[in-house]
Amino acid sequence: MTLNPADDRFAARLRETLPDDIFRPVVPRYLEEPRGRYAGQVGVLALPRDTNQVAALVRAAGVARVPVVPYGGGTGLVGGQVMPEGSAPLLISLERMAEIRAVYPMENVLVADAGAILSDVQAAARDVDRLFPLSLASEGSARIGGNLSTNAGGVNVLRYGNTRDLCLGLEAVLPDGRIWNGLTRLRKDNTGYDLKNLLIGAEGTLGIITAATLKLAPIPAGSGTAMIVVPSPKAALDLLSLARDHLGEAVSAFELIDGQGLQFLTEELPEIRQPFGTPPSWSVLIEVGLAAGLDPQTALGDLFEAAFAQGLASDGLIAQSEGQRGDFWSVREHIPEANRRVGAVSSHDVSLPLGAIPDFIQRGHALVAGFGDFRINCFGHLGDGNLHYNVFPLMGQTRGDHTQHAGAIQRAVHDLVHEMGGSFSAEHGVGRMKMAELERYGDPVRLDAMRAIKAALDPAGIMNPGAVLRG
Amino acid sequence: MTLNPADDRFAARLRETLPDDIFRPVVPRYLEEPRGRYAGQVGVLALPRDTNQVAALVRAAGVARVPVVPYGGGTGLVGGQVMPEGSAPLLISLERMAEIRAVYPMENVLVADAGAILSDVQAAARDVDRLFPLSLASEGSARIGGNLSTNAGGVNVLRYGNTRDLCLGLEAVLPDGRIWNGLTRLRKDNTGYDLKNLLIGAEGTLGIITAATLKLAPIPAGSGTAMIVVPSPKAALDLLSLARDHLGEAVSAFELIDGQGLQFLTEELPEIRQPFGTPPSWSVLIEVGLAAGLDPQTALGDLFEAAFAQGLASDGLIAQSEGQRGDFWSVREHIPEANRRVGAVSSHDVSLPLGAIPDFIQRGHALVAGFGDFRINCFGHLGDGNLHYNVFPLMGQTRGDHTQHAGAIQRAVHDLVHEMGGSFSAEHGVGRMKMAELERYGDPVRLDAMRAIKAALDPAGIMNPGAVLRG
Repeated sequence: MTLNPADDRFAARLRETLPDDIFRPVVPRYLEEPRGRYAGQVGVLALPRDTNQVAALVRAAGVARVPVVPYGGGTGLVGGQVMPEGSAPLLISLERMAEIRAVYPMENVLVADAGAILSDVQAAARDVDRLFPLSLASEGSARIGGNLSTNAGGVNVLRYGNTRDLCLGLEAVLPDGRIWNGLTRLRKDNTGYDLKNLLIGAEGTLGIITAATLKLAPIPAGSGTAMIVVPSPKAALDLLSLARDHLGEAVSAFELIDGQGLQFLTEELPEIRQPFGTPPSWSVLIEVGLAAGLDPQTALGDLFEAAFAQGLASDGLIAQSEGQRGDFWSVREHIPEANRRVGAVSSHDVSLPLGAIPDFIQRGHALVAGFGDFRINCFGHLGDGNLHYNVFPLMGQTRGDHTQHAGAIQRAVHDLVHEMGGSFSAEHGVGRMKMAELERYGDPVRLDAMRAIKAALDPAGIMNPGAVLRG
Repeated sequence: MTLNPADDRFAARLRETLPDDIFRPVVPRYLEEPRGRYAGQVGVLALPRDTNQVAALVRAAGVARVPVVPYGGGTGLVGGQVMPEGSAPLLISLERMAEIRAVYPMENVLVADAGAILSDVQAAARDVDRLFPLSLASEGSARIGGNLSTNAGGVNVLRYGNTRDLCLGLEAVLPDGRIWNGLTRLRKDNTGYDLKNLLIGAEGTLGIITAATLKLAPIPAGSGTAMIVVPSPKAALDLLSLARDHLGEAVSAFELIDGQGLQFLTEELPEIRQPFGTPPSWSVLIEVGLAAGLDPQTALGDLFEAAFAQGLASDGLIAQSEGQRGDFWSVREHIPEANRRVGAVSSHDVSLPLGAIPDFIQRGHALVAGFGDFRINCFGHLGDGNLHYNVFPLMGQTRGDHTQHAGAIQRAVHDLVHEMGGSFSAEHGVGRMKMAELERYGDPVRLDAMRAIKAALDPAGIMNPGAVLRG
């Protein structure tokens, strides 16, 4: 089934029923994505003001068999928001639907337009003394509809879950242009198939999310942060278990830091203040959020003592001030920037069963060594089993010296991840970049079910064609 | 598309490829359900020993166009497990697939066959010092596959979520007889459509769940229980907010108790020890599970003092012993039995947005009064917005005296619930009993999407026909 381009005739037809001011000339930012790997094309750019206009646009695209690309903040890293090939699409940006529709503090619920910027949702929650826990690097420009469509992760998944777990209900325009009103505030509603979770993570291929009911959480009474030196990744995992024994679900972040990453920081960003004189081979950043009546510093101190007694920790620092907390987090948050400056040969956003991680790190290092001498920075959201396993050239070399190995290293790492029960995309999604990986590693029965669902809900294949599933 | 009965010829064909010992004569318990509202029929009863046998059975049914009814513990209350009409089905009971396949304490993960009894799953978690939080009245006979297929609720939803929220991955036989292996232990895996959540809550109409990866939680270091007298349902909600301000997410149960329910207990079950001399009009049962370092009794005492100061509580008791905790819970747990003895004219398992509950109770009472003089017992999982809103005859009358009003009262209550943004089935599902309600109250766009998904995954309509969606 070939699709038609969103050409002048199509544009003219749209203007017959929709107000002129929702159409805009295409500017470059809608054709780009953060890492510059794809160059998009757009036939018609529409910035609807409300859900009815989104529905009218999708209906018209369906009639004309024109592809539709939904657009949030444009911060996705797998090319889900750009369509480099095929007939030029109608791009629907949700940026003018960016209101917080309602806040229900007593219910711990907030209703937002899909175009609301994540940091605005966080702020609206804070205004009523609540926490919207989703937090990630691009929160100042990412929009909540995009976060939902990609089921974004971030730094608080350990305690609060992925975006999926923070959503109670959706409003969406389905591929036939009809509006599904599922903006429920209910915590319990067992009345049929879970359409909400089907749309979440579908990356715009099954419809356009136009609004969402989101869960808020109480703000913990007290928070604390520690950096603890551990002898090995296995010890880091044992420390995580110990932390949960001590603190229950209060552990909100548990990040593994690789000595190689600290070394990169020293080399590339010497202005970042590092907590330990000599970069330890392995350390963890722990954040806890505690109920009233518990002192975070005491709790972290007790944890460290117990860990030290069990040989799980050799050194540690507990932040004594907000400034020091900021310093600890700054180390963690600048590692990706130092990585960029060094230039990776191959990067991997993988997840593994927690128990498999020490073995994976060992086997991964041996595997990469088979391709030559490299530096590896293996860090990330250890508590979620999510590692950024990145391979770098030796000092004095550049990524360009290893172009011939990049694909083979990536394949070998992903093969190992798959063999050990892991995923080749922990938090970024499939988009256009990882479609071949999905075909290689995805369960074939599940893939067929996905294709059947796609064909059932979007028989003409107009919704974000080329993303997730091959057209 | 008419289906064929699971007759002798079909049975003979199954025996050609499957071992004799998985077929059993049909005994009455497979034809019954707990409240005796439906009488089922079964052509062939199969008790497979493994997933491959389940797959072979479903494949054979597909070829022969024979309906399949999946069967767990048989404890469902909406007739999802019995097929009273149409061609006699192949009933596949998972009872011989009841193993705990693996436990990963460090990962807080357990893998169980779908036929594992819920209390066995709980026990396996306890054996490694972990909590599997799903807890409900039928846990001694309900099987985890059925809990998943109905997305069961229970008493710990407030803190730990519904069954859906406790599942990381599934293994299932899809309607075409193929096995989907989705038994992941990953916390993060963004690689395509969420087939897991589509099967959860589908009540066996999209496939048969054969195994699941389940999330475990740490056991709270200390637990406490209180009963607190509140002036009104509104005050109960304010008390819930206050409890969360004090205790964060440690509040694991928050049950509303209606004075009418305590009155029924006095009348019908006088041996149950009640905490207050005169039954208060409204009270709540609060359970907290706290991290180490916090004393539950002190925490509940502080909460009561703050509530009293704000006029949200007039009296209260904090359990001083395990025996007293048991007494408090015994009051809550015997209310349904007292209800049964009185005999309801109409019962409603509804959920509402939390903030709408006080208004709903007031309007509901006025509505019911329009049909005559009745006694109302409105109680349940207030923290989840889930009320059991049950209407009883006056003392000296029986439900039989009001048969003519039962349907109209139910319709009026459900209409009101729907108008206020609530659900006609909070935790029991749709099954065969509430299919008409789903058609009346369900969003039509979502219903069409559900029908399209059903047709895509089960084009012959063999999986549990007549449940959830009309055939």
